[in-house]
Amino acid sequence: MFESAELGHKIDKQTYAREEPGLRAALLDAQFELAQAGKFPVLILIGGVDGAGKGETVNLLNEWMDPRHIQTRAFGDASDEESERPPMWRFWRELPPRGKIGILFGSWYTAPIVDRVIGRTDDKDLQQSLDEIVRFERMLRDERVLLLKFWFHLGKKQQKNRLRELEKDPRTRWRVTKLDWQRFKIYDQFREISSHALRETSTADAPWTVVEGLDPRYRSLTVGKVLLEAMRERLAAHNSKQASVKAPPLPKTDNLGLLRNLDLTQKLARPKYKKDLEKWQGRLNLLSREKKYFRKRSLVLVFEGADAAGKGGAIRRITAAIDARHYQIIPVAAPTEEERAQPYLWRFWRHAPRRGRITIFDRSWYGRVLVERVEGFCDVADWMRAYSEINDFEEQLVDNGAIVCKFWLQTSRAEQLKRFKLREKTSFKHFKITPEDWRNRENWNAYEQAVCDMIDRTSTEIAPWFVIEAEDKYFGRIKILRTIVEQMGQVL
Amino acid sequence: MFESAELGHKIDKQTYAREEPGLRAALLDAQFELAQAGKFPVLILIGGVDGAGKGETVNLLNEWMDPRHIQTRAFGDASDEESERPPMWRFWRELPPRGKIGILFGSWYTAPIVDRVIGRTDDKDLQQSLDEIVRFERMLRDERVLLLKFWFHLGKKQQKNRLRELEKDPRTRWRVTKLDWQRFKIYDQFREISSHALRETSTADAPWTVVEGLDPRYRSLTVGKVLLEAMRERLAAHNSKQASVKAPPLPKTDNLGLLRNLDLTQKLARPKYKKDLEKWQGRLNLLSREKKYFRKRSLVLVFEGADAAGKGGAIRRITAAIDARHYQIIPVAAPTEEERAQPYLWRFWRHAPRRGRITIFDRSWYGRVLVERVEGFCDVADWMRAYSEINDFEEQLVDNGAIVCKFWLQTSRAEQLKRFKLREKTSFKHFKITPEDWRNRENWNAYEQAVCDMIDRTSTEIAPWFVIEAEDKYFGRIKILRTIVEQMGQVL
Repeated sequence: MFESAELGHKIDKQTYAREEPGLRAALLDAQFELAQAGKFPVLILIGGVDGAGKGETVNLLNEWMDPRHIQTRAFGDASDEESERPPMWRFWRELPPRGKIGILFGSWYTAPIVDRVIGRTDDKDLQQSLDEIVRFERMLRDERVLLLKFWFHLGKKQQKNRLRELEKDPRTRWRVTKLDWQRFKIYDQFREISSHALRETSTADAPWTVVEGLDPRYRSLTVGKVLLEAMRERLAAHNSKQASVKAPPLPKTDNLGLLRNLDLTQKLARPKYKKDLEKWQGRLNLLSREKKYFRKRSLVLVFEGADAAGKGGAIRRITAAIDARHYQIIPVAAPTEEERAQPYLWRFWRHAPRRGRITIFDRSWYGRVLVERVEGFCDVADWMRAYSEINDFEEQLVDNGAIVCKFWLQTSRAEQLKRFKLREKTSFKHFKITPEDWRNRENWNAYEQAVCDMIDRTSTEIAPWFVIEAEDKYFGRIKILRTIVEQMGQVL
Repeated sequence: MFESAELGHKIDKQTYAREEPGLRAALLDAQFELAQAGKFPVLILIGGVDGAGKGETVNLLNEWMDPRHIQTRAFGDASDEESERPPMWRFWRELPPRGKIGILFGSWYTAPIVDRVIGRTDDKDLQQSLDEIVRFERMLRDERVLLLKFWFHLGKKQQKNRLRELEKDPRTRWRVTKLDWQRFKIYDQFREISSHALRETSTADAPWTVVEGLDPRYRSLTVGKVLLEAMRERLAAHNSKQASVKAPPLPKTDNLGLLRNLDLTQKLARPKYKKDLEKWQGRLNLLSREKKYFRKRSLVLVFEGADAAGKGGAIRRITAAIDARHYQIIPVAAPTEEERAQPYLWRFWRHAPRRGRITIFDRSWYGRVLVERVEGFCDVADWMRAYSEINDFEEQLVDNGAIVCKFWLQTSRAEQLKRFKLREKTSFKHFKITPEDWRNRENWNAYEQAVCDMIDRTSTEIAPWFVIEAEDKYFGRIKILRTIVEQMGQVL
């Protein structure tokens, strides 16, 4: 991986002086075009060994281009708001929106590599992290993020010389810390493991560019040219308006039984409901106050279901049992402008709960494989890939201590009609029925297919789907409450 | 303040049973209308003594209305991201957008009252905090926030009985902690100081409603009715489309000299510029690395100036001197959808820097008193009140350790024309000139007046304006760099 970055590449002064002004102007032009088009962001990762010119290069990029449209972020220790959420949360929150350039100094590679070098993890852990990274970066690619990864390298001798050099000069002495020398001692392990990590994650879509860090002129021109070429290529591709990639259609499944075989006749009489409600709300209340265990965990509830299936009512029976200070309901509607400028899952990541909290999603990230799929609001390829992206997202929530319960509320088509009509009559519920609801109703079969696919593809052991027979509201609500209590009890 | 809340108010069961369903339906209707109109948010503050039913009431409001459109936030200890910013930052980030209801459990009153009770502050500090609160709440009113403040009260004996009662019942025992009894010991001081605080902040626009907390039925109906009436009244006022309040015009000033008397002929020859640039950039670099001092402070730079006055060029000369990991540039353009749903300053508060960081605003919150004033993008009353709101905002930044430098870059009208024409010719600068720039140029005199007013009204000792003669770019840039270094040196 590093062989050709130890050859002593050099660019002489004249060549640099000749090439730099043109490169600079071209980069500025490309940045302008990027902002004007506003169709994709550029994300630049900077990694590598100390003293190899990472900081200098980042500063230079900010100097060459318009720094007002570059977001440079360095990742030091996590803040407490960050450390109480899945590790990727801090990177998600710093993704540049479309039209902008983001430079990440340190990235999702830092922890996996460093943890392995100092022996905090083993080879299997590292491999798992790298697999996750590959999937994450594939998602970025699919979301049209232009991802560029630069690794600044120095041979062992070169690094030693470089650190000594910096130490000698009073103007640069501050840059060499004890930590740098400590890290130098484990140069060989660091080299071996990062070489492995780079190889595993150097995919066709997001290859690493290893830059020899010895000669400032060489590394500057190298990074500048790679960046320029990648931006130009993508801008040209964008202008030529490629046909969108068509994913193969899903094989026709006969799993409709999943919904159709439900016993929707199940009922609960009012007196029994009242009694059960008190019982399960009481238990939920107790569990939600289990400070000792719950402060290391969080609860994520996802509610999906056809219109008028009773999501709102079910949610109110849950919130009635818990303290308003501990939960947060996220009603998912159309994305805002800021959300539309980001990868699809960004608007859900921003609500990822801290430990000890409860977050209830009234509709969720599953919109992509339900309404967006059925109504054709996104490309086929987009909802096809959403299944695995969603699984990855939920896995990260669970790894961080979240208990994730997902509910699909099912009624019959006839019952839906009854409720629609009833609602149109009842005064204080009138807000729940819109022309869109009537339209969605027309697509009942398409939704049924989408729901079955969704459950098949995203009901995992760690984040299962619970299909709720919601024809009878009482029955549905109690089943939901009981399920939550059981899931929490199982984990806490 | 608390006299009539110690009378033992009670509502009997029948009355409650008769009134509750209607109140509930009406609240839900009002909430719906609020969401539909989307014109203002409702902000409910909950304060008072322990055991007086604060939590129960908040839960009840969530039960009565649609909890999906209520944001309940409790404020415990500040997170590190919060504690490194001005104290009000955590409240700003939780303000509900238009159309939503926000309930704050604990608020900007908590710290001033508690700090005074335990003797961490004196009467003068308290008074200052209360004054600031009054100004802050006036801003909320002017931003069309419907603010409702509820204080839950219990007499001393009543509180004692209440805590004992809660302790006896195994189902509520968990709610009484040692802290509650500790606080009970200082009941008298707490009563005295909160009574004073409430009186001082019970303004015509945002009066306190003191609720006797003894009887759950009484307190529930009281809060529900006050909330309902306030929402209805505001919704009606909104529907009747009142004429917007006209503020008195500013007295004609003759302070135009402020800009016109500038000596725009000041110049710097290139060799001297080169030398000076190196000198001041070097000093700025050193200062930005003064970890020991700077980690308790932050630097906020504000750049305003006519189009083509050289803001971008000046900013680049600053960023070239500091590490890209330490600064962030916020180019201020039109507000996003999420920003438009909030009070004006919200979109700047969200970028308030943590300690140790440098934030550079390329255009800023002064847009309101410049472009928005001149172009008539906001009401007269809105930009009139902006001066003092801005002063309050900057004072909070400075109190939190920020060094705030504001630059107005001035050129002559002729020089602007020259630069416009030059830019239209030069390839990689073409992005800087838009039809809007030409339009703004037509309003030169109106802008001049606005700038003079702005400087007069917002150049404070703690956050001064520096007017920069920017006719000669070299001269302007050096003056800016020198000013920053001087300001930092003075403070660090």
